[in-house]
Amino acid sequence: MYSLPKRLGAEFLGTLLLLAIVIGSGVMAENLSEGNNGVALIANTLATVFGLYILIEVFGPISGAHFNPVVTLTMVLLKRQPGSELLPYIVVQLAGAFFGAILVHQMFDMELLQFSEKARTGWGIWTGEIVATAGLLLVILMAKAERVSGMVACYIGAAYWFTSSTSFANPAAAFGRQFSNSFAGIAPADVPAYVVFEVIGGLLALVLYKAFGSNNSTVTSQAPNPAA
Amino acid sequence: MYSLPKRLGAEFLGTLLLLAIVIGSGVMAENLSEGNNGVALIANTLATVFGLYILIEVFGPISGAHFNPVVTLTMVLLKRQPGSELLPYIVVQLAGAFFGAILVHQMFDMELLQFSEKARTGWGIWTGEIVATAGLLLVILMAKAERVSGMVACYIGAAYWFTSSTSFANPAAAFGRQFSNSFAGIAPADVPAYVVFEVIGGLLALVLYKAFGSNNSTVTSQAPNPAA
Amino acid sequence: MYSLPKRLGAEFLGTLLLLAIVIGSGVMAENLSEGNNGVALIANTLATVFGLYILIEVFGPISGAHFNPVVTLTMVLLKRQPGSELLPYIVVQLAGAFFGAILVHQMFDMELLQFSEKARTGWGIWTGEIVATAGLLLVILMAKAERVSGMVACYIGAAYWFTSSTSFANPAAAFGRQFSNSFAGIAPADVPAYVVFEVIGGLLALVLYKAFGSNNSTVTSQAPNPAA
Amino acid sequence: MYSLPKRLGAEFLGTLLLLAIVIGSGVMAENLSEGNNGVALIANTLATVFGLYILIEVFGPISGAHFNPVVTLTMVLLKRQPGSELLPYIVVQLAGAFFGAILVHQMFDMELLQFSEKARTGWGIWTGEIVATAGLLLVILMAKAERVSGMVACYIGAAYWFTSSTSFANPAAAFGRQFSNSFAGIAPADVPAYVVFEVIGGLLALVLYKAFGSNNSTVTSQAPNPAA
Repeated sequence: MYSLPKRLGAEFLGTLLLLAIVIGSGVMAENLSEGNNGVALIANTLATVFGLYILIEVFGPISGAHFNPVVTLTMVLLKRQPGSELLPYIVVQLAGAFFGAILVHQMFDMELLQFSEKARTGWGIWTGEIVATAGLLLVILMAKAERVSGMVACYIGAAYWFTSSTSFANPAAAFGRQFSNSFAGIAPADVPAYVVFEVIGGLLALVLYKAFGSNNSTVTSQAPNPAA
Repeated sequence: MYSLPKRLGAEFLGTLLLLAIVIGSGVMAENLSEGNNGVALIANTLATVFGLYILIEVFGPISGAHFNPVVTLTMVLLKRQPGSELLPYIVVQLAGAFFGAILVHQMFDMELLQFSEKARTGWGIWTGEIVATAGLLLVILMAKAERVSGMVACYIGAAYWFTSSTSFANPAAAFGRQFSNSFAGIAPADVPAYVVFEVIGGLLALVLYKAFGSNNSTVTSQAPNPAA
Repeated sequence: MYSLPKRLGAEFLGTLLLLAIVIGSGVMAENLSEGNNGVALIANTLATVFGLYILIEVFGPISGAHFNPVVTLTMVLLKRQPGSELLPYIVVQLAGAFFGAILVHQMFDMELLQFSEKARTGWGIWTGEIVATAGLLLVILMAKAERVSGMVACYIGAAYWFTSSTSFANPAAAFGRQFSNSFAGIAPADVPAYVVFEVIGGLLALVLYKAFGSNNSTVTSQAPNPAA
Repeated sequence: MYSLPKRLGAEFLGTLLLLAIVIGSGVMAENLSEGNNGVALIANTLATVFGLYILIEVFGPISGAHFNPVVTLTMVLLKRQPGSELLPYIVVQLAGAFFGAILVHQMFDMELLQFSEKARTGWGIWTGEIVATAGLLLVILMAKAERVSGMVACYIGAAYWFTSSTSFANPAAAFGRQFSNSFAGIAPADVPAYVVFEVIGGLLALVLYKAFGSNNSTVTSQAPNPAA
């Protein structure tokens, strides 16, 4: 098992790169797609699916590749991770998300510190965010260990399109995306509600998971090789 | 093996999510694609392929992940599932399909109860639906167990494009999609013929399957881990 | 090992479905893409990649899933298949290709018997077809058995774009596609040259394969489970 | 283990085909996409992902499938490859890259020898190239051997979009792409800076790799079957 500093480093770097992928591919897609947001979201989807797969493969064996406070919270509630690690994990996830946005702006010659003006609010979108997060957690909890990286990536690829919220499903993602006034952004005022409904989605997944019981091997992470 | 209520719950939830993915990604795609239906169907295809893969992975070990009355009927005809379970499976599949449409409308701030006005009829489309369903069942019957989730997903991804009917291949899908007046909808009057030709396609697949004989391991479901 | 009639049936049905996928997805893509041929070829590519993968998975264990006279010829030259089977394989491949085109026209309410008017000729395109076929055969010969289905599918997905001929790489495909005056068609007068350069490409692959020697397990087919 | 001449032949042919795929799919995409560069880059991405996967699968067992001087340099620095092979590997990689561009021009009836006029310069793009190359090397160093082909392909698919430089991440690619005045080109004057920042990115990956330590099996190549 890796030391806590190494695991926190992995969560920091992984979340940073995840946000760089999500926000950066959104910037590139919007720049190139001549106003066709369908084309832009296809590009954003492919980049996210490809990138999420490799981030979970690379960092999963080290830290579990959560990159997501709701995932860490769920692992703590299931007693697969000590409660004392919840706060440190969340802190580095949020920090990584912030610097992921900054890195994108440096790469694309944009103002480094920005705030999004894109409104994302209302009961429709909030329902979407509950569904998106519940689905993500259910996938993580039900997946066989050696397939979880591809399954999480594919799930997010579907959820970008079938949920009205384009599936943030991750409070760290919501936190980081408020710092980019671009395709993937979210206005800071709309972040708290996203976080609330994401946590609700995560708890819903736990209820469903308990209801079905489990025939699956226990996983402590999104990792293909759990560092158990 | 899971209890019947759990298996019915899995079929209900899986079919609900399948329809939410198919209809929801169609709504999102149509909203974003500036009238280019090629772009919209590419998006709808990717979301369906990604989503179907994970639904079969997640629910396959519990219920077989049929989500489709023709699949359940075929398993009963092959005596891999008791005939007494046919009706309960179909009932929850239809109910799941209906609520999948409702969930999409709630997420996208649309009228909850709708009826599609999209005509889908004629011998061309009906031939397409026979081919689509025969192909789907042949894939399910011939696939190796550990690859069936990916193969069904890829098959549907191809069939969205090469069949003139965009490959419903599933009476529950036809049933659920009549309740959404959006990209993926089908007018209620056109549903019965779809169901008839889907059943014919399923029977055609059985004939072909018997004709080739089988060197494959017997599967009772689309599940990577059959709950046998 | 399957009987010759069953293997010929598999080659017939597989080639029929392959051409139905290639031509049918081209028709659908052209109908929907508002004149943007980039969008149409992306759709055609995805359908072909998804479809080819499952056709090789399904029919590989029965017949080797050649669907292609150059593949069968190569297997005969490598003495992995008896020379007496060359002609029967080619006959059913060509017949399947023809009926694949007819099936598409039935599904899409088009004139059943057609001839393409799309010119595909010149040294640039012919060079493309040599490269396309050499690459395909090299992939088949060098692939590990359990990955060959996905590798052939991915190869064709790349070759649709990087070769100027959009990579027919298959005399049966060239034969069948002349019977459809649609996106994937080829004028009958241009078919013989395609066949010649495809055979040259296949021989080039054999030379390269011998030059590198082989550390790989011998495969007799594109099949994940060779019917040896 | 393969002889050095065979390994150099594999690096030459693999790099040639890699550049043919990257440049050729760019030409095709630009020709077809009606000025929508978002559509063109999606096509370019799919072709590259599919093609890179099969090139690494095919040539990995022979030469390690580097196709990239920074990868070879890293393997030498990690003492997984003799230093005496560094120069020969780089020479054939550059030669392959050059002839890959020429092959594309022959296939697409273009002037055989060209120089790109596309400026790619500035601190934003250079930061992108550091990130792109560091990410690529980290993926190669951290991947499990049997997944490395797919992971490298997926990584590049993401990096085409999330880095501002569209992720060359490879001095041989930069070298070859200056010889094509097309979608994937780079002006010769901008190549040296790309190479410098790619090497910096590679060294950064080494630092990160050492920092995390390794629980992974040692790989000497991108190969699924390392020729050890």
